[in-house]
Formats: sequence, structure tokens, C-alpha cells
Amino acid sequence: MARIVMKFGGTSVADIARIHNVARHVKREVDAGNEVAVVVSAMAGKTNELVGWARDMPKASGGSSPFFDAREYDAIVASGEQVSAGLLAIALQSIGVDARSWQGWQVPIQTDNAHGAARILEIDGSEMVRRMGTGQVAVVTGFQGLAPDNRIATLGRGGSDTSAVAMAAAVKADRCDIYTDVDGVYTTDPRVEPKARRLSRISFEEMLEMASLGAKVLQVRSVELAMVYKVRTFVRSSLEDPDAPGMGDFDNPPGTLICDEEEIVEQQVVTGIAYAKDEAQVSLRRLADRPGVSAGIFGPLAEANINVDMIVQNISEDGSRTDMTFTVPTGDLDKTLNVLDKVREQVGFDAIQSEAGMVKVSVIGIGMRSHAGVAATAFKALAEKGINIRAITTSEIKISILIDGAYAELAVRTLHSVYGLDKQ
Amino acid sequence: MARIVMKFGGTSVADIARIHNVARHVKREVDAGNEVAVVVSAMAGKTNELVGWARDMPKASGGSSPFFDAREYDAIVASGEQVSAGLLAIALQSIGVDARSWQGWQVPIQTDNAHGAARILEIDGSEMVRRMGTGQVAVVTGFQGLAPDNRIATLGRGGSDTSAVAMAAAVKADRCDIYTDVDGVYTTDPRVEPKARRLSRISFEEMLEMASLGAKVLQVRSVELAMVYKVRTFVRSSLEDPDAPGMGDFDNPPGTLICDEEEIVEQQVVTGIAYAKDEAQVSLRRLADRPGVSAGIFGPLAEANINVDMIVQNISEDGSRTDMTFTVPTGDLDKTLNVLDKVREQVGFDAIQSEAGMVKVSVIGIGMRSHAGVAATAFKALAEKGINIRAITTSEIKISILIDGAYAELAVRTLHSVYGLDKQ
Repeated sequence: MARIVMKFGGTSVADIARIHNVARHVKREVDAGNEVAVVVSAMAGKTNELVGWARDMPKASGGSSPFFDAREYDAIVASGEQVSAGLLAIALQSIGVDARSWQGWQVPIQTDNAHGAARILEIDGSEMVRRMGTGQVAVVTGFQGLAPDNRIATLGRGGSDTSAVAMAAAVKADRCDIYTDVDGVYTTDPRVEPKARRLSRISFEEMLEMASLGAKVLQVRSVELAMVYKVRTFVRSSLEDPDAPGMGDFDNPPGTLICDEEEIVEQQVVTGIAYAKDEAQVSLRRLADRPGVSAGIFGPLAEANINVDMIVQNISEDGSRTDMTFTVPTGDLDKTLNVLDKVREQVGFDAIQSEAGMVKVSVIGIGMRSHAGVAATAFKALAEKGINIRAITTSEIKISILIDGAYAELAVRTLHSVYGLDKQ
Repeated sequence: MARIVMKFGGTSVADIARIHNVARHVKREVDAGNEVAVVVSAMAGKTNELVGWARDMPKASGGSSPFFDAREYDAIVASGEQVSAGLLAIALQSIGVDARSWQGWQVPIQTDNAHGAARILEIDGSEMVRRMGTGQVAVVTGFQGLAPDNRIATLGRGGSDTSAVAMAAAVKADRCDIYTDVDGVYTTDPRVEPKARRLSRISFEEMLEMASLGAKVLQVRSVELAMVYKVRTFVRSSLEDPDAPGMGDFDNPPGTLICDEEEIVEQQVVTGIAYAKDEAQVSLRRLADRPGVSAGIFGPLAEANINVDMIVQNISEDGSRTDMTFTVPTGDLDKTLNVLDKVREQVGFDAIQSEAGMVKVSVIGIGMRSHAGVAATAFKALAEKGINIRAITTSEIKISILIDGAYAELAVRTLHSVYGLDKQ
């Protein structure tokens, strides 16, 4: 008998009819003889409604302070999953499947005290697993747990993916199925490149790059956890007929398996093309080239909660002055320039140049570790289309290229084609 | 320093603006130097929405069974108070009042296992009281607690009044203020008799009769608890300006004090007139007059969850056959007749007569214990208006009269006047 964790997001449980559909997916796995835990998000729209109320309350009180207590925010927002978990348990019972809901504090799912953006520390699933052993489906509220202060803590937006993977690790599940409104992970965004193909498998490392680079299928933190605990994770569609042929195939269900790279027999050099829009480029000209300069720039930016992404620094010509370029989200550009103005004197640089509306296009593939010339292929292909490269950063399995936002779609399609991703 | 429990119902916390108004009521009591716990209901309409989903879920699954798990129902429905408690805590913080929310399981408020209609067994308010001692307002979710199975249990509709009184007893509060959308308890329903007056005080026993007889100000169970634990309970309005003159008067706030009868110095013979509509009268003719007959009738009715109210049985003429009359809610009349048909043979009676659309009018007053002729006054007054009396039951402090529903308002006004309740 196998043990499966199934996760359903907000659009999958958006209304009574969809919750019934989710129950049918669960029943299929139970009927196949599996022990099942289900992790659910709040019904689509509910979390936003609750967050809106929490944010509006201080304003309604006429105060100028936008302050709200993260612990109260958590108590309010966590109620969304409480409702969907209870409804799914009822739906399962209605079709003859034994089930009960578990709230994070009941399992318990222990988190740290960082209310609003908590991390899961430990899951004591022993009582839950005991009941699963009797054939009872455990329906668990995603996105939340119990903090050391005995109050509910939420994991931050999208945290239900993380809940599911952490749960799968805790109960030693054979598989963690993330049901969503797409049917898998694609070689690139199909809205940009209709020839994008669904991947049958992708490695944890590659998925981590895909996730953090803007392919919004899975939350980054959940992929990190899956990688650390070697959780075999499937991304698959909740919108398909639960009883369609092949849906119950244990080893090869329709969707994309995120797994250890050793499980991927025929490795491609390049697996996918990701992109992230709304990047702003900031360049510091004739920067003093001495120890502590980087800390003097990026320390204050981090304190201002600005998420710096690509960082490029050239070796200086004469050993005293250099140029540095980095990117920040376009929404943070004004704040960034303010911070830099303040540290200009102390750090020492001649000028700041900046430009918003950039896009970062990334080529991802574990195979490039053992293949030369992958980067050169990208540069040549972009040059042939007349696309100017603003900055380049690389890692072992990724090449990221900053270009003007106007060329985003063209660049994605060009790279997708040059690495043969549009061919079966 | 005094300790106060304040309770606000669903209409009082219906939206962000009203929750802010509630926060101002609380701040007034805090500023006066009191330790305060606040018990809140769900935002008006939310409980109905949640109940609706729980009820619709089994139907959506296409099953013929209307079954739903009361434990899941509780988990779903209890989320409503979780939201309003969190929002009120934020509202209080926004106007400079230290506050935190407490969910039933966090206090904990221990209940029995009767999910959906649980009873409070014990409240361990020690940590809550400790924090209240530091000036922190405790905002507590009404209507719910923690059952022995470590799951949320709700107290049944209207249960927040009970939560508040139980909390007041547990923390030894000096006062329990029930804020609602009326400004107190009246001598009768002001919509029926505009001359109805607000009572400044009413005894627990009288309020119990008023509550159970259809004056929907307070839940019956909460009055029982208040009586047992001698909780001084005020019924007052949440809609008034929190800072209007007299609102902060500790001993005589605007509203009605429900208290021990010894606290009521000038006792009236009659305190109020209550009525309950939609009663159906059922009469069994020539019923066998032997031991076990009543059990043979009311046992099966109780098993069918039919709430029998007035029961009148006359002494039989010849010692062998008698007539019996009782009332049930009009909505349960068909079910009642079905049950009676089944037991007819075994119990033994000649005929069943029934009539729907009756109303029960009741005269209530502790003073009638020491005054003769109170009942006679009622009968005479109704007779003068040509109102026919169908049945009469009495207790020490109450006379209930069943009449044709068409005369309901006339009877209420007539009795209200004949006992001088419309005079200051």
C-alpha cells in the first residue's frame, strides 16, 4: 500500500461543485488502495477578502498608522482553509469515503514565531498517520501551523504548496501530487510560445530555477523542501475528469514529475526557458574598488527590504575604479535610488544610471554542466534577432540574460527554438 | 478596579465601521480603569453563509443522504468568530488599546462532545486573566469551545450569549454587558404595544420565562447560567454613541439589569407580557386514564425531536377516560400527527383533534407568588374582549394562555394595560 499527499489550490476548491470534483480525485486514489492526506488552500477569493478586511480595519479607525498585528492577521486569514478543509471532509463522507479535517494546530504542524511568513519546524503526524492507517483520509488546512506562542501562524502567500511537501516528508509519502489549474510544467510559458511542450520530468534543481525565475507553478520554498527531503512531487491538473483513463496510474500519472536528477534518464542539455518581467537595471559608474564596497551598497538595500537580483561587476581597468550593475523589481526602483543617494558619499561612486522595464530571460538545464557552448548559442541567437544584451549572470545550470522588455516574447521564442525545445 | 465582560452580536460587528464602533465601546470601559474581556459573534450573515455551504455540500455530491458530520460543521462555522475576533483586536490596537484575540481552543473553553449543540464544561481563563491584569483586552470568539476530542465544538445558534455569561462566571466578572440591537428588555414587544416600557431591572427567573416564551433578547441557556452563577447581566444597545452621556456609568448604565430578585426593591406584581406565535394545538379525546399513558405519547414525540410545550390534562369524569391537550410548533404538526397515529392502538384514544395558528400569551411576574387574583384578572380582561381561551398552564411566576392567533396583538395589549404596565 502506498501513501500519497494530494494538494489542491484555491481555484480547485473555489465552489461547492469544484470541491465535489476534488473529492472524486481523492476517492480514485483511496479506491486504488492508497493512504491519502489532502492539503487544501482557501476557496479562491476568500483569502483576498480576509486580507482586505485586516488591512482596512486600521484605516476605518481613523488612525494614520497602517499597523496591524501579524498574529491577528494570521488568525483571520487562516480561517479560509478551515472552511475548505471542513467542506472537503463533508464532500468525501458524502461519497462514502471516511475523512476528517485537521487544522494546523490539531496535527500539530509546528512553525516558528514569524507570524505572516512562518517556517514549518516540525510536523508530528503520528495520530494523523494512525487514522490514515484505518482508511480515513486526512484533510489538512494548508498555509498554516501552530507557533510557539500557541497561536496560528501562516506561511505567507502560496504556502499551501510548502505545507503539502512538508507533510509528504513528515508522513514519508511515496508521492506528493500538487493539483493546480495547469496540467504540468512546460518548457516555457505557453501563452508566449504555443509550441511549448509539457515536461514529463524535471529535476529539483531545474524546477527551483524555473520557480524562482517566474514560472509560477510551484512556490520556491516547496521545491527547496522537496529537494532536501527527496519528495517525489507531481504537478498535475485538477480540472480534468478524475476518472479519465490514466488518471490513476501510480507511476506515470498525467503531469510533470519533479524528482532527483538520477531519475531522469534522457537528460536534455536545456530543459526550459523562464522569464521575469518588470526588472529595473541600476548601474553605478566609477565605483571605488576596495573591500567593503559591496557591503556598503547591498547592506542598506537589504535593510530597506529591496530584493536585489542579478549583480554584475567587472574587473576594474586600473585597480581603483569599476562599474557595477544590478537589478531590482521596477516597483522598488525609486526606493533603491533614494537608498543609493544616501550612501553615495560614504561608498564613493561618480554616477547612478537606471532604467526600468527590463526583462530577465533564463536558459535552464542540468545538462549544461557537462556541455560547452550553451551560453554562446544563446548570445548568437539573440544577436541574430538584433536583441541587445544588458547584463549576463550564470550559475551551473542556468544562464540569465537581461534585455529590453520590448523583446521579451521574441527572446523567449528564439531561445526555445534554438535549443530544440519545440521538437518532440 | 472592576472586571467586565462585554458581548457583541452579529449585527454589532456586521462590517468594518461597526467593528470600529464596538472598539470605541470597549475603549470607554478600558479608559475608566476596568479589566475587559470581549466576546464576539460572527459578522452578520457569515454564519448563514457557512451553514449554507455545509448543508449544500452533501447535495452537490449527488447523494440522497443529507448527512453532514457535525464536527466538520463546527470547524467550518466556527471560523466566523475567528475572523470577527481578529478584526476587533486590530481595531482596538488601532485606537491605542492593547488587545489580543483568543479562540475557544486557546483559552481553553472546554465543552462536552455534543458537536453542534455543545455545553461549556469548564473555562480555564488563568492565562487570559493574567494578561487582562496587564491591561490587555481579551477578545474571545463566542459560540465555541474545545471538545474532549481536541476539535472545535459550537454551542448552537445564539450561543455567544452563553459564552459571555460563562466567561463572566469563570473570570468572576463584576458585570456582563450583552450589547445588542435593542436597548434593553421591555414589558412587552414594542412592535405590538408602542406603550411598552423598558425595564430598568428584571429578575433572572422572570427573564428566563421571557426568554423561553419568545422575547428574543437573550438565549435561554445564558440566562440559566447567569442565574446559577449570579452573574449581573446588562442588556444594552451597541448602536448608541459609545461616548454619549451616561454610557460609562458603572452602576446604572442605560439598559436593563438582569439580577437576583433581592436586588429589585420595588417589585411589580406583573413584570411583562410575552407571546409565542405559530403554536399548534393537539387534543386527544377519550384517552385511557392509566399509568404510562403520558409516557406512551410523549416518549415517541421526544424521539421524533418534537418540542412539546403546554400540556393540559383534566381529571377524568369516571376514572377511565380523559381528554389531553398539548401544543407543538405549527411546523411540527404533521410529524406529530404521524407519530400519534402510530401509537394510537397501543396507547388507546378515540380521536385526535388539531388546529394550527394558535398563539401563547404569557403574564410573567415574581410578584404573583404573593398576590392572589392575578390569573383571574387576565381571564376577565380577555373575556371582555371576546377572546376565547383554549388552554391554560401556570407556574409560580407565570400564567400562559393559548388563544386563536388572530387575537395575538389584541391580547398582548389588553394584558399589558390591565396590569398597568403602560404606566410609569
